[in-house]
Amino acid sequence: MNGAQALIRTLMDAGVTTCFTNPGTSEMHFVAALDAAPDMRAILTLFEGVATGAADGYARMADRPAATLLHLGCGLGNGLANLHNARKAGTPMVNIVGDHATYHVQYDAQLQSDIETVARNVSTWVRTSASTQALASDAAEAVAAASDASKEVATLILPADVSWGEGVESQQAWPQRPPEMAAETTVAAIAAVLKGQGAKALLLGGKALREPALRAASRIAQASGATLYAEVFPARMERGAGLPAVERIAYFSELAAVQLAGLQDLILVDAKAPVSFFAYPGKKSDLVPEGCRVHVLSSATQDALGSLEALVRKLGAQEIEPALQPARRLAPPCGKLTAAKACKAIAAALPEGAIVSDEAQTSGVTLFARTAGAPRHDLLTLTGGAIGQGLPAAVGAAIACPDRPVFALVGDGSAMYTIQALWTMARERLNVTTLIFNNRSYAILNIELERVGAERAGHAAKSQLDLSSPPLDFVALGKGMGVPSVRVDTCEQLNEALARAAKEPGPHLIELAVPNAFSGLKLKALPHVMNALDKMPLAMAKALKRRIAP
Amino acid sequence: MNGAQALIRTLMDAGVTTCFTNPGTSEMHFVAALDAAPDMRAILTLFEGVATGAADGYARMADRPAATLLHLGCGLGNGLANLHNARKAGTPMVNIVGDHATYHVQYDAQLQSDIETVARNVSTWVRTSASTQALASDAAEAVAAASDASKEVATLILPADVSWGEGVESQQAWPQRPPEMAAETTVAAIAAVLKGQGAKALLLGGKALREPALRAASRIAQASGATLYAEVFPARMERGAGLPAVERIAYFSELAAVQLAGLQDLILVDAKAPVSFFAYPGKKSDLVPEGCRVHVLSSATQDALGSLEALVRKLGAQEIEPALQPARRLAPPCGKLTAAKACKAIAAALPEGAIVSDEAQTSGVTLFARTAGAPRHDLLTLTGGAIGQGLPAAVGAAIACPDRPVFALVGDGSAMYTIQALWTMARERLNVTTLIFNNRSYAILNIELERVGAERAGHAAKSQLDLSSPPLDFVALGKGMGVPSVRVDTCEQLNEALARAAKEPGPHLIELAVPNAFSGLKLKALPHVMNALDKMPLAMAKALKRRIAP
Repeated sequence: MNGAQALIRTLMDAGVTTCFTNPGTSEMHFVAALDAAPDMRAILTLFEGVATGAADGYARMADRPAATLLHLGCGLGNGLANLHNARKAGTPMVNIVGDHATYHVQYDAQLQSDIETVARNVSTWVRTSASTQALASDAAEAVAAASDASKEVATLILPADVSWGEGVESQQAWPQRPPEMAAETTVAAIAAVLKGQGAKALLLGGKALREPALRAASRIAQASGATLYAEVFPARMERGAGLPAVERIAYFSELAAVQLAGLQDLILVDAKAPVSFFAYPGKKSDLVPEGCRVHVLSSATQDALGSLEALVRKLGAQEIEPALQPARRLAPPCGKLTAAKACKAIAAALPEGAIVSDEAQTSGVTLFARTAGAPRHDLLTLTGGAIGQGLPAAVGAAIACPDRPVFALVGDGSAMYTIQALWTMARERLNVTTLIFNNRSYAILNIELERVGAERAGHAAKSQLDLSSPPLDFVALGKGMGVPSVRVDTCEQLNEALARAAKEPGPHLIELAVPNAFSGLKLKALPHVMNALDKMPLAMAKALKRRIAP
Repeated sequence: MNGAQALIRTLMDAGVTTCFTNPGTSEMHFVAALDAAPDMRAILTLFEGVATGAADGYARMADRPAATLLHLGCGLGNGLANLHNARKAGTPMVNIVGDHATYHVQYDAQLQSDIETVARNVSTWVRTSASTQALASDAAEAVAAASDASKEVATLILPADVSWGEGVESQQAWPQRPPEMAAETTVAAIAAVLKGQGAKALLLGGKALREPALRAASRIAQASGATLYAEVFPARMERGAGLPAVERIAYFSELAAVQLAGLQDLILVDAKAPVSFFAYPGKKSDLVPEGCRVHVLSSATQDALGSLEALVRKLGAQEIEPALQPARRLAPPCGKLTAAKACKAIAAALPEGAIVSDEAQTSGVTLFARTAGAPRHDLLTLTGGAIGQGLPAAVGAAIACPDRPVFALVGDGSAMYTIQALWTMARERLNVTTLIFNNRSYAILNIELERVGAERAGHAAKSQLDLSSPPLDFVALGKGMGVPSVRVDTCEQLNEALARAAKEPGPHLIELAVPNAFSGLKLKALPHVMNALDKMPLAMAKALKRRIAP
């Protein structure tokens, strides 16, 4: 075989059977080799940020890496933002980045750039394959690097002549190392903490937000009186009726401070100690309360489930039944549409086994609370803050789970970073319902402008957050890329559009005409409004309200 | 003032009065400071690649840098491909990249990444401003670095607390160093070469493609019998009736080899020795013919015009009249639309003083020849090969030259990388006519697939180049972003649409339904077809045809 053929065969043998692509000339041998590899599913995207975001969404759902195929340093650059999100999510992924032939590099041709340096920014494993003979073994190592306990983005740079060279064979997959458990002494020490006095909490992230880990965490919580928190932006969280409910740390640090106030011990399980998303003048970045002790049960490279189960045993809590979220299906709302009512409508319509890719940072703020008792579903969120991830992640999730309905919630601003994802949804006939909250604004920035202390904004500043002129018409944009699209102004229209999307296979786009959820909100009122709005079950929000304004 | 205010004032004092933006929270003080700086024009884009490509297009036309405002490492990443093009074009630009507050970095929050490393990939000058006190002087240095003889991308990283810190003043602009001329000995040596026997040519690039330099080069050509070539992808080329005509090196190395065959001396003026865009199995990368001597009159950091004029004097050619392209206005075509006829229609309609941003790599292949005798215009091309530059560059050119009509020619594939540019065209009511050649294919890759030797492509491979399912509807996409849009299937419709666009101010989009210009073309037929199609005046193409197939 030639190098490209051996590479694809090696990827497939290692379980990488999906590749999100946007190829150019230097990748043409890889493309040609697809003909002989019908089991490698190559999914074309119109923009590299869609490919990398889709590979991220795929791996979050499939628990194994997809590949991407990118065109030199510039293609990698276009994919960088969603590779950043994947890195922060701990997503396994193998990027194949085509490069000039090795002997062509010296000429500094137009597309020549330093690919390795850019790749290192988002990848723990980077290699330029030096020869056709080395390529298959480099590929096997790349998959192993992506798939092992540390879960990371691996980038294999593929010179054109290494790809087209002949006379090589594929390589077998490397064995996977299972992740290590927490040390016995760590488990014992944390068990002792949990048996002690004072307010305590477990902060769950990464793999600790899957059902078996959640059940173990719930047993621990009941045995010890600890509160369960989830990290603010989980990569993937299993939730809904019949699963243990977990409160998410709030995005707004003002509110997170209220959530965590009085805590004396915080136990991290595949999560980092909570910090403010951004820094603000005169405000603390570190959200761990003064005097609170932080303990690590298991890190991102360790076995979260095994460590939690060891802790269950240490606490003798094996027989405790996990506290499960009762089913609570909301009634569909009616009347004029608002972002909050839209979240209610989505919660009312959410089918069993749905996957929700949530990048609606302001309009979607009540979704988490509203869907707490909805049928069981998976939630994917914006792990790295690089917006433009919601639509691509939905593409990848739908490829990984073709039998599960996918919902992508995005704002008008965030939708436009990777709007090209709609075309791939149509081309692959994916069961994705895209919900675009069009409030004609970078709404989150209206409040951020005030939060940073720049409250007396005038026309020039405010126009930088304004998307009303011209208004974006997402029905036209969706249709332009082959996705059946509809605009809704009332709850009834939204309910009907959701029902239609559930009935008809393939992608749908619903543009929601909504007012800015935070319009006119003043900073000092923030905690009072947020306790009703933020991403936590209603009962918790009410308890919180009592704490702030008794 | 605070840091952001001092920064903006410093930029303006140094002549940077335009900023292409896509801000986030960490840039909110910069945004707020715009209120006090009405002379700084901030132009919002929906995607960072539009901002960086627009800054590139702006500077190519204005000959001074614009700024960009980007959101941390991910915003920079989204802008990277067009920064690569800018770097290859030698475009001055000042990126302002917001970052977390200095004290927030230690927490490795969601958006934390290594900005400097990514910036270095495309910028010669990179600095993270360390304090509010240092910010204004850092900004003055950044503008100086961008504007001096070497013309480069400068990136200033702006931590949020450096931006919001108070009590500082702006700084004066640094004096600009004029570029150096070629050494007298170099000029004398090259004059001697030009007086010698054998075939010789000047290869003009960069600033050598502006009118005064072209006139000097034409005098040299007439005095010495040298041929004038332009680099294959010039950043900006002044051309048309009344200017010296210059033949461009062909993109296809097979054809470039024919152009350059027999050359004994090649003199570079602000250009690099010609190399193949990509490497191909069994083909040479270096396009300089065997035995041809390469001489450098002036490099990118030197004064091309001054050096050419010194050479004119050395040759005693001051009195020779430059050979000027006669006006030759084509008649508008009629009948069914093809890409070649479309180029004729555009040439027939091109108004005096137009700016043409050409990224239609296959469909636009005859444009250069067809517009040779059109009214004087500027041509901007894809300098770095990172597609997605054509529409953003048109935005920037239109901002720089509000009184000149701008035409952006892009393929369907390339249009989709930065389609968000249309919204900024509508928002700013720019006089840009966007022409999208929709052949439902990555057409260039069809032939590249064969050129790399992968000619027996099957369904899986070919589907990676196919954009027909679903077909992209650019009229819908244009309207979705507020741009009046029309689809044309005949030459008559195109002629009419061009006339309407010329009459009505503001942006227009014309979607051209065309067959793939290279459809069914076999590699061995390439030179024969290319001599009729490639980007050179018809007379030259005919002469070339005689050379290949006498």
